[in-house]
Amino acid sequence: MQHCDTLIAPRWCVPVEPANVVCSEHAVIVTDGRVIDLLPLAEARQKYQPSAFIQKPDHILIPGFVNAHTHAAMSLMRGMADDMPLEAWLQEGIWPVEKRWVSAEMVRDGTELAVAEMIAGGTTCFSDQYFFPEIVAETAVDMQMRAMVGTPIIEFPTAWAADATEYMSKASDLVHDPYAEHPLISTCFAPHSTYALSDESFIELRVLADQLDVGIQIHLHETAAEVAAAHKNMGKRPFDRLQNVGLINASLLAVHSVHMSDAEIEVFAEFGVNIAHCPRSNLKLASGIAPVAKYLDRGINVAIGTDGAASNNTLDMLSEMRMTALLAKASASEASAVTASDALRMATLNGAMALGLGHEIGSIEPGKWADLTCVDLNRIHSQPVYDPVSQLVYTARADQISDVWIAGKHLLDNRQFAHIDTDNLLQRSNEWRDRFATAQY
Amino acid sequence: MQHCDTLIAPRWCVPVEPANVVCSEHAVIVTDGRVIDLLPLAEARQKYQPSAFIQKPDHILIPGFVNAHTHAAMSLMRGMADDMPLEAWLQEGIWPVEKRWVSAEMVRDGTELAVAEMIAGGTTCFSDQYFFPEIVAETAVDMQMRAMVGTPIIEFPTAWAADATEYMSKASDLVHDPYAEHPLISTCFAPHSTYALSDESFIELRVLADQLDVGIQIHLHETAAEVAAAHKNMGKRPFDRLQNVGLINASLLAVHSVHMSDAEIEVFAEFGVNIAHCPRSNLKLASGIAPVAKYLDRGINVAIGTDGAASNNTLDMLSEMRMTALLAKASASEASAVTASDALRMATLNGAMALGLGHEIGSIEPGKWADLTCVDLNRIHSQPVYDPVSQLVYTARADQISDVWIAGKHLLDNRQFAHIDTDNLLQRSNEWRDRFATAQY
Repeated sequence: MQHCDTLIAPRWCVPVEPANVVCSEHAVIVTDGRVIDLLPLAEARQKYQPSAFIQKPDHILIPGFVNAHTHAAMSLMRGMADDMPLEAWLQEGIWPVEKRWVSAEMVRDGTELAVAEMIAGGTTCFSDQYFFPEIVAETAVDMQMRAMVGTPIIEFPTAWAADATEYMSKASDLVHDPYAEHPLISTCFAPHSTYALSDESFIELRVLADQLDVGIQIHLHETAAEVAAAHKNMGKRPFDRLQNVGLINASLLAVHSVHMSDAEIEVFAEFGVNIAHCPRSNLKLASGIAPVAKYLDRGINVAIGTDGAASNNTLDMLSEMRMTALLAKASASEASAVTASDALRMATLNGAMALGLGHEIGSIEPGKWADLTCVDLNRIHSQPVYDPVSQLVYTARADQISDVWIAGKHLLDNRQFAHIDTDNLLQRSNEWRDRFATAQY
Repeated sequence: MQHCDTLIAPRWCVPVEPANVVCSEHAVIVTDGRVIDLLPLAEARQKYQPSAFIQKPDHILIPGFVNAHTHAAMSLMRGMADDMPLEAWLQEGIWPVEKRWVSAEMVRDGTELAVAEMIAGGTTCFSDQYFFPEIVAETAVDMQMRAMVGTPIIEFPTAWAADATEYMSKASDLVHDPYAEHPLISTCFAPHSTYALSDESFIELRVLADQLDVGIQIHLHETAAEVAAAHKNMGKRPFDRLQNVGLINASLLAVHSVHMSDAEIEVFAEFGVNIAHCPRSNLKLASGIAPVAKYLDRGINVAIGTDGAASNNTLDMLSEMRMTALLAKASASEASAVTASDALRMATLNGAMALGLGHEIGSIEPGKWADLTCVDLNRIHSQPVYDPVSQLVYTARADQISDVWIAGKHLLDNRQFAHIDTDNLLQRSNEWRDRFATAQY
C-alpha cells in the first residue's frame, strides 16, 4: 500500500482531459498538493492508504473553474450602478467612485469578498486586473487562492501610479520579484484597453513583456462604440493598433472580443490569440453577444470570465458556463453548438490554457495541481440524472458546490470555509458601501 | 388591536404595484389567505395582534413568482435530450418517450417533482400544458400550489385522448366542472401549436372558448422554421391562421413569440394579446431571442415562463427573470432596457395578468391572495446591498428563497417544506428515469 494525502471518491469524475469522459466509481488521489492518480475506486482501495478518505456519493468531481477575467475588488460596487451602458456606467457610475476611494485597503477588502464568493462557487483560479495588484496577490496568497495577477497599465493617474511609465515600472517590479516561482501566483501585464494607452506605451510594453516573458491581457472590441470611436479618432480599429505594435500573438488574452470581423478572427486563429468570453457582463452592458461557436470552430482557445461584480453582478462560474452554452446556441442558430461538455472544458482547461497554465491546472490529470471542485447533484432541480455533465451545466447552482481544493488544500468542506470569517468580511463590505454611497449618490 | 393570522416583517418589501416602490421596515398582514394590509412596522405593531409574527431581518419580500409557461411533468425528462434543435428534440428525443410512457401516474410524479422545485424556488403559480391535465390540477391542489391548468388539444392520439374532438370534450369537462370556483385552480385551453391543429378544430375551439369564457394559450412563432414551414405548407404564417379564426384577442397567451413581424407586433398590441417569454428554452433550442424591449415599448403584456425542464433545464424563475433582463439589453442594444424593477414586474404581476388573474395575485395589495416569496440577501454574493431589487434580480439564487406562502399557507418555512417528502419524490423520479432510459436509449 502506498501512502497518499487524500483519496476522493465521488459518484462521477469528469477529468476534462481526455475530453468527453465521465468516470463512475473512480477515485482521485492527491499528495503534496498534486493529483497523482485517477483510477477505479476498487483498485484505489487496494493501492493507496490515504490520510483522508472522502466519499461523495451523489457528487460530480471536476477541475476547479478558472475565471479568466475579473476585477475582484469591484465586488464592493456590486449593484451600485445598474442598467447603464458601458460608457455611462464607467464615466458616471464607476470611475468617480474609484477616483475617490481606490486604495490598498479597499482593494484588500474587495478582493477578499470576491475570493470568498469564488471559492464558494467552485472557482480555484482567477485572472484579475485591478489597481494595487500587489494587494490582490497578497490577498490571494493569504486566502490560499490561485491567481493570475494582471498589473494595470493606463496613461492617466490613479492612487496606484501617475502615468504609463510608473504603471509599467511598478508592474515590472511585481512581475520580477516576489512571485517568480510562487506555487499559487502568476503575473501578467494588463493594459486596460487601446483607448487607455498610446502607441508609444504599447511599444514600450511589448519590449518589456518580451524581456520578462509574461503574458498580456487587454479589453478588446468589447463594444461597437469602442471600435467605431477608435476608427474615428485614430483611423484604425483597436485590433489594428495592437497588430501594428506586435501584440497580436499567443501570449495575448483578448478580453470580450464581441465585435470582430471575419478577417480579425482569422488572424486570431492563425496567431493563437486567446479570448476571455464574459457573456453576462456583455449582456448587462448591452455590449452584444460574442460569436463563440464561430471562434471555437476556427480553433481559437475561448475561456470564460465573469468580469467584475459591478457588471455581472456575481462571480459565479456555473452560471457563466451555462450562459455560455445557451447563448452560443442562439447566436449560432444551432442547438448543438457548445454542448454541456464543451462548456465545462471552456470553464476549466481553456481558462488554464488562456493563462499559460495549461500544463499545471484545468484538468484532473496526474502531475497537475489538485485544484478540484465537487458538486452535489442530489437536489430536486438536478434530478433525475441521465447525464451528470448535463445536470452540472444546465441545472446546478453555486450552492451545490460542496467541496473545493486548491493545490490539495481542502478550503471548502461540506459548504463550510476552513479559513474565512464571513461575518467580519460582510461587515467590512457594508462599511465600504456606506462610504461609496455617501460620496457618490 | 385587531387579530390577524400572520404578520410578516421583512427588511424590505416590494409590492410591485405601485411600481418601483421599495418599502423598508414595513409589515405585510395576512388573514384568511389574503393580504389585508401593508403598513409601517411600528404602526402594524400597534394595530394588529398576529397569531404568527415572522421577522425576516435580511430579507426582501415580494409577490410569489408566476411561471407563465410550463410542462411540469416533463421534469422527469430533465437532461434526457440536450443540445438538439427543437424539431429533432421533439421528434427524436421527447415524443417517442412520451408516446411510450405518458400516463396518469407519470404525470402525477412529474408534476410533483416540478411543483416541489417551483415552490422551493419562490414560484406560487404556474401555467401548465400537458396531458392528463386533471392529474395536474389534482396534484397542484394536493400540494397546495396555485395553477392555471391548460388542457392540451392536438389532432393526433395519445394516452389521454384519440382526436381533437375527444381532447376538446375532455377539456370542456375539466373547465366546466370541478374547478369553476376553486381558490387555487383555474383552467384554460392549450392547443399545442398551429402545426398540431386544423383550421376546423381551431374554429370549434374558438366557439367553445367563447361559450365557456376561458382563455387560450398556444406555442406561437417559437422558431423561424415553424413560421417558414407554415408559410410553405399552408400559404399562411401561424399568426395569420389564428387571426383568420378569430383567436387573436386579449384572452390569448402567445407562448414564445420569438419571430414576429412589426405588423404582427402591432396587432398584438392593438388586441391586447399576452406573451409568455421563455428565454432560456429559446436559447437552449436555438430558437432565438424574442425582442422583449420592443414588445414592452408597444405596451404588450409580457410574462415570463421557464417552459418545461426538458428544455431549460430548471424551473427557476429567479434565473429566468435575470435572463430576461440581461437578454433584453443585448437584443435592444440598450443597457437601460428592462431594468431590475421591470423584470420583477414581468415575473409577477405581468404573469398574473397574462393568466387573467391580475385582480387576484401578482402584487402585494390588500384584497389579493397572500402568495408571497421571501428572499434572503445575506449571502456573500448578494452583498453589499445598494438596491435590494438589483440584488434580487442580478445576484439572488433559488437557494436564497427562505419562505413561501400560497393563499396564506406557509409552505416553505426557512427552506424546509411543510408538506413534501422529497426523499420519496426523488426515488419515484429515479424510477421513471430508469424506465425512460431503458425504453429509449
